[in-house]
Amino acid sequence: MSADTATVGGQVTLDELPLRDDLRGKSPYGAPQLDVAVRLNTNENPYPPPPELVADVVEASRVAAAELHRYPDRNAVGLRTDLADYLTTATGVPLTCANLWAANGSNEVLQQILQAFGGPGRIAVGFEPSYSMHPIIAAGTRTEWLPAPRRSDFSVDVHAAAAVLAEHAPDITFLTSPNNPTGQSLEPAELADLIDAAPGVVVVDEAYVEFSDRPSAVALLATHGHKLIVSRTMSKAFAFAGGRLGYLAAAPAVVDALQLVRLPYHLSALTQAAARAALRHADATLASVALLRAERGRVVSELAAAGYDVVPSDANFVLFGRFADAPRAWRAFLDRGVLIRDVGIAEHLRVTVGTPEENDAFLQVAVDVLALEERA
Amino acid sequence: MSADTATVGGQVTLDELPLRDDLRGKSPYGAPQLDVAVRLNTNENPYPPPPELVADVVEASRVAAAELHRYPDRNAVGLRTDLADYLTTATGVPLTCANLWAANGSNEVLQQILQAFGGPGRIAVGFEPSYSMHPIIAAGTRTEWLPAPRRSDFSVDVHAAAAVLAEHAPDITFLTSPNNPTGQSLEPAELADLIDAAPGVVVVDEAYVEFSDRPSAVALLATHGHKLIVSRTMSKAFAFAGGRLGYLAAAPAVVDALQLVRLPYHLSALTQAAARAALRHADATLASVALLRAERGRVVSELAAAGYDVVPSDANFVLFGRFADAPRAWRAFLDRGVLIRDVGIAEHLRVTVGTPEENDAFLQVAVDVLALEERA
Repeated sequence: MSADTATVGGQVTLDELPLRDDLRGKSPYGAPQLDVAVRLNTNENPYPPPPELVADVVEASRVAAAELHRYPDRNAVGLRTDLADYLTTATGVPLTCANLWAANGSNEVLQQILQAFGGPGRIAVGFEPSYSMHPIIAAGTRTEWLPAPRRSDFSVDVHAAAAVLAEHAPDITFLTSPNNPTGQSLEPAELADLIDAAPGVVVVDEAYVEFSDRPSAVALLATHGHKLIVSRTMSKAFAFAGGRLGYLAAAPAVVDALQLVRLPYHLSALTQAAARAALRHADATLASVALLRAERGRVVSELAAAGYDVVPSDANFVLFGRFADAPRAWRAFLDRGVLIRDVGIAEHLRVTVGTPEENDAFLQVAVDVLALEERA
Repeated sequence: MSADTATVGGQVTLDELPLRDDLRGKSPYGAPQLDVAVRLNTNENPYPPPPELVADVVEASRVAAAELHRYPDRNAVGLRTDLADYLTTATGVPLTCANLWAANGSNEVLQQILQAFGGPGRIAVGFEPSYSMHPIIAAGTRTEWLPAPRRSDFSVDVHAAAAVLAEHAPDITFLTSPNNPTGQSLEPAELADLIDAAPGVVVVDEAYVEFSDRPSAVALLATHGHKLIVSRTMSKAFAFAGGRLGYLAAAPAVVDALQLVRLPYHLSALTQAAARAALRHADATLASVALLRAERGRVVSELAAAGYDVVPSDANFVLFGRFADAPRAWRAFLDRGVLIRDVGIAEHLRVTVGTPEENDAFLQVAVDVLALEERA
């Protein structure tokens, strides 16, 4: 990102700018975007959109493009209605447009939640290791972040967690099911207990829920609508990471609250049109989920057979170890043409479940890297 | 937005939610989106994208859609390079990708600036009446907003403004050229004086600059790059309001700073592709600017001839009055099929310059409404 001093304004350094203090010395978030043959580092769905979905996105873009001189529907009513219909079918809970909200990726959804219910003087709690954007978005909205621990097997101790919520009384509690980067889900009864124990708003981040057998927390909205928000994304199971569409289900009053902090016209006409086209092909896209779950089973058992410790996963990724030096092992995978993720958990790396061919390549390299480890 | 109690979670009210205190009682920002024959209320370009631009957006969407399962380029290097090339051609200042940043509308660009350089304990100043999103985005980032006055003719008194900046030492100063909703530009020498007087970062919001004769503040980046940020949008002159693409030009270090607060993958692959397609047709789109400037002249002179007070404008809208009761007059226009904007300035309304036919319709109604006013 740096520029030489010949660039206009290039003589100014970041240190000279009146940046807010808590940003000094920080680096931008994000996994390396490297051009490697096998990319299993960002939990993308490896299957490209089917041709009929691409054709539908193209036609939807044609219609939207003809009206690009006009602002989009600020309330995205059509898209939110389609998302409600999808969730109603998926969960059996009768949701309407009034229960749904959408933004440019679930990161923006979470930022809007923190702007409405967090901020200076307010506290958010999450159970770590978990999605590393939660504390970053909390910091971006000046919400104090309080990390609480998981068990050493990365599961949540519900009784201990309830005690944390009682002691610190957070304004916002983040739960994740399945949890990224470790893979475990919470059972509905556990979710209900934690929501009951939480004094403030509870966000259940279900970015990977389509890969799990467990029921969605959406079923709890009827009884816990005064504090429950279920966030979701089209980036993973829906194979729509490039389209940037996150959404949430909640009580209508929560959606009203988010409209007080959303930037007007935050969702482009093209995004709304493309996401609606993708939702029309949900059955085709989500068919890949069964393939990926089967491959997850194979990756887990072959890693274990090779001699790795593997963390059980309900998602489209697997956390495994143990490495004497995880960053060095990450580099060993990369040197052999396989990009996986060092998520900052000691002795562990995370691999996204890819196509069978990608998984074959990964598993072969995994055997080689383990041999390397054993020699080291 | 309200829902009946039969909706899932519908029995929960906004008042019962633990909303942050400064949002209580607020209403969402936004002009009414009404289905009216003549819509001259949001400063859109009335000319639809030319067919060759639509075709190019469609082809770009086809390429992007085939890769939607992958995350987009997080740094949007191609788009930022194209924006740099456009600005270099438009202003004569040799900019590169390192000088450019883009987001989902200039609102998101401004929010990122406030997240990086504003926040709790910091102050932003603007000269009002001006773009009403500036204080709203400041509030959303918990930056204290300090409104400073303009002269009664809505121009900025540069000496008085410099005194305000010296007294309050804002961390961020917002200048607008041309100013929305009043229409006046600042001269380059005035901009330079105000940037010199400002202790912190200065944002020059040039959302409407293509409609003005005055040179862009981009020319000042070479000398004032340590504190100047020039924000722009493709929503107005570029006729790309539905595509949501705002951008800025600044020193590379400023762009580095914004990458510390941007949400990762904030710009979708479709947005990046469509905006690049639109930039390839800049000449065709910007040809409408000459038409709109000529129509602006006609609207101004016919309004004046009809007996209105008209504020001189460098933009694609005109502020006019004086009405005994501006909200009542706004309703009278709407009742006659013309949607304009009550921007909250006493005795005044704002009209966007439309097509000749739309302007004819507006001007005819303006005569009728004035007659109504005189009878009242």
